[in-house]
Amino acid sequence: MIHNDTIAAVSTPAGVGGVALIRISGDGAVAAASKVFFPASGKKLTDAEHSRSYYGRIFEGGEAIDDGMATVFYGPRSFTGEDTVEITCHGGILITERVLSAVLAAGARAAGPGEFTRRAFVSGKLTLAEAEATGDLIHAKTGSQLALASPASRARLSESVSGLRGKLLELLARTSVRLDYPEEDLSDIDESELLSETEALLSETEALRATYRTARAVSVGINTVICGRPNAGKSTLYNLFLGQPAAIVTDIPGTTRDVLTSEASAGRVLLRLSDTAGIRESLDPVEKIGVSRARESIMSSELLIAVHDASVPPDDDDRFVLGASAPVKLAVVNKIDIAPPERVAEYSELAASFGAVPVLCALSEGKGFPQLVEKIEASFTDGELRLGHDALIMNARQSAEVGAAAASLLSAADALRRGLPVDIAVSELSLAHSALCRLDGADASEEVISEVFSKFCVGK
Amino acid sequence: MIHNDTIAAVSTPAGVGGVALIRISGDGAVAAASKVFFPASGKKLTDAEHSRSYYGRIFEGGEAIDDGMATVFYGPRSFTGEDTVEITCHGGILITERVLSAVLAAGARAAGPGEFTRRAFVSGKLTLAEAEATGDLIHAKTGSQLALASPASRARLSESVSGLRGKLLELLARTSVRLDYPEEDLSDIDESELLSETEALLSETEALRATYRTARAVSVGINTVICGRPNAGKSTLYNLFLGQPAAIVTDIPGTTRDVLTSEASAGRVLLRLSDTAGIRESLDPVEKIGVSRARESIMSSELLIAVHDASVPPDDDDRFVLGASAPVKLAVVNKIDIAPPERVAEYSELAASFGAVPVLCALSEGKGFPQLVEKIEASFTDGELRLGHDALIMNARQSAEVGAAAASLLSAADALRRGLPVDIAVSELSLAHSALCRLDGADASEEVISEVFSKFCVGK
Repeated sequence: MIHNDTIAAVSTPAGVGGVALIRISGDGAVAAASKVFFPASGKKLTDAEHSRSYYGRIFEGGEAIDDGMATVFYGPRSFTGEDTVEITCHGGILITERVLSAVLAAGARAAGPGEFTRRAFVSGKLTLAEAEATGDLIHAKTGSQLALASPASRARLSESVSGLRGKLLELLARTSVRLDYPEEDLSDIDESELLSETEALLSETEALRATYRTARAVSVGINTVICGRPNAGKSTLYNLFLGQPAAIVTDIPGTTRDVLTSEASAGRVLLRLSDTAGIRESLDPVEKIGVSRARESIMSSELLIAVHDASVPPDDDDRFVLGASAPVKLAVVNKIDIAPPERVAEYSELAASFGAVPVLCALSEGKGFPQLVEKIEASFTDGELRLGHDALIMNARQSAEVGAAAASLLSAADALRRGLPVDIAVSELSLAHSALCRLDGADASEEVISEVFSKFCVGK
Repeated sequence: MIHNDTIAAVSTPAGVGGVALIRISGDGAVAAASKVFFPASGKKLTDAEHSRSYYGRIFEGGEAIDDGMATVFYGPRSFTGEDTVEITCHGGILITERVLSAVLAAGARAAGPGEFTRRAFVSGKLTLAEAEATGDLIHAKTGSQLALASPASRARLSESVSGLRGKLLELLARTSVRLDYPEEDLSDIDESELLSETEALLSETEALRATYRTARAVSVGINTVICGRPNAGKSTLYNLFLGQPAAIVTDIPGTTRDVLTSEASAGRVLLRLSDTAGIRESLDPVEKIGVSRARESIMSSELLIAVHDASVPPDDDDRFVLGASAPVKLAVVNKIDIAPPERVAEYSELAASFGAVPVLCALSEGKGFPQLVEKIEASFTDGELRLGHDALIMNARQSAEVGAAAASLLSAADALRRGLPVDIAVSELSLAHSALCRLDGADASEEVISEVFSKFCVGK
């Protein structure tokens, strides 16, 4: 895979700001930039020192269109590993486009999404998992997502995967040499030792794989439906979720277009709230279509939060809501401050009979809400895992590779237990090793790599 | 004016992108940045070389939150003239805010709009007019606006103003020394020579002031109303305007929120088109309110383009439209390809009788449109002026200062012509000099400076 043509893109967000950065990478980066950028000192950009910033003028077709700074990073000492030039100009939409078009006219081509990071990966500057983490970092909207994509977290995952790979490789080397050279005076393979080492690796791999449950709850989010009768306290609950310190609503213009207004945080868990305002009304027999839509919404949810007003007796609506099917069901028994205790108990029993965990609340006073958040966190994340520190599997692709490794390790252990020829176990161990290599991109296919980088923005 | 506390802001546009740049400026900039950014080499940022970029990790509260580059520029060799640190991190909304908040926690305060550029002005790195031009550059949406704010254009204005100031100062020095030391054996002031020099300066100042007409048409734009009967060709004309090569519509997401959809270019002139689709219909007597609104819209316009269908006889609607009052009125006599010549002549005469300049067109074929654009350009700009090269007064503030200088020069010339004591003329010349100093910010009041920089975005 040789990518040494010269690419260029605006690497800063589109919009109006003080400055913008245009990145150019490839064998011809310095030559292209030197046709556009002229240091004020009279020095040529082709004589620029590594990593030094020069002030100068930016030209397009013989006309000075702006002034700014240029910095040259000679490969391999650059982000991409190739010769790279970064030009900063003023941050207007049109002026930025003009500077970029001048660079393109000077011999670069427009970079595709994630192409700079892809080159960094190809140059061995980043593992595939690290590249994915930087993409996550850019798109992080909650503090937990940010922690998950932090440098320490990225490094821990790469470390953890390479640790597993190392152990597997060592085991494979030890076993293979005895299989390949049986005539040598090497002691026989101790199959029970091989089994126990395989089992240890399996449990380590399973543990790593299990971290995806937490990472997924934090980064992808949990499809959540809040439902209940009118005035049960749905809106109060909704506002409590949005009022969390880790709220994803920022005061930066432009956030909103990327954020579904119905995303909210429950501690470390990202909730993707579906609007089910119409659930009760749609019980009306004439509104059959409405009912079926509400049911569909509940059916595809992973978390159902039923809200009940304990100050009034349960009715069919309460039962309808509790009767819906979802992997995790929590029943908020609300208004316990004004409800008779026996009715609170009645709701709790009703909830339990439908497989929902009751949480007693007085939401208007915020009472019971921390317990609800705790129950959500406990249901979807592993409290032992420290975001931003521990190795966590961060996305479905990684989870699939770790899963494949675990499956192969399981087959290997199974073959050994059943006394099948050691070759079979060794071949499975080798498959497990390949899966872990793919996780870090060491052996990933072109399709996988293209898929990973296609999700990036242009300029990254 | 001492501004040496340390300020920080995100200088790149808000949004999702590959990288973002955080700028820190002030006496404590390096100290604050060194608490947040740690070069991978192990070197401390406080030992950083001037203008060299270092790769490293960014910390917040003891946690590595991102990696990026940092560059230190020691004052006065920086944009602001103060010690400045630029940190680039990943370009997500949340990660950028985190890095900024770490810098703020390390001792910087959040910069206000335009505060970096203001410091550059205070340090004498930029004149006020140059600062204004960089603001214009960032907000430029058309090629002509961009040319107007180009480095060459900025430099030419500063040059032109300082040339005028120099001549005035020389004149003042020469005259004052004779007034202050009458006992010295200096020849008398030649009042007729003083008058002719004052008149020469006046005409130079007036010429500079007159350039604002062109700059205003290019940058602020001309309030324009296109009106006429249904099917006269209004939409065809509108589309022709939007189809201009210098069209302001870019394909960059985020442009639209800053651009009124009814802005269009007519050559170098920016047209701010008002929607008057309802003008004819509102002639219906019952729709009095509609009519009055349409009239208001026409009343506040600077350019009225009446579109007529020459294939049918003129009616009251045509007369109503032509009868409206506007500083510049153009009458598009459309469909001349299918209209009888005598009717075309009839429309031309009708237009002329209302003070509108007729332009014969067959808009559906694009015929006559270039002539229309030429007439618009000739009506609002000076064809001699080359955008991007010549000195142009760029905004109302500058125009007011040049106007004040011209008024004082006129008073001086008047006093000399009327044989009043030379002191009076000298005092007026001194006022003219002050006005030109204010234009470049040399003597501008705090309010004026604050007003200029308040229009900037934060981070600039």
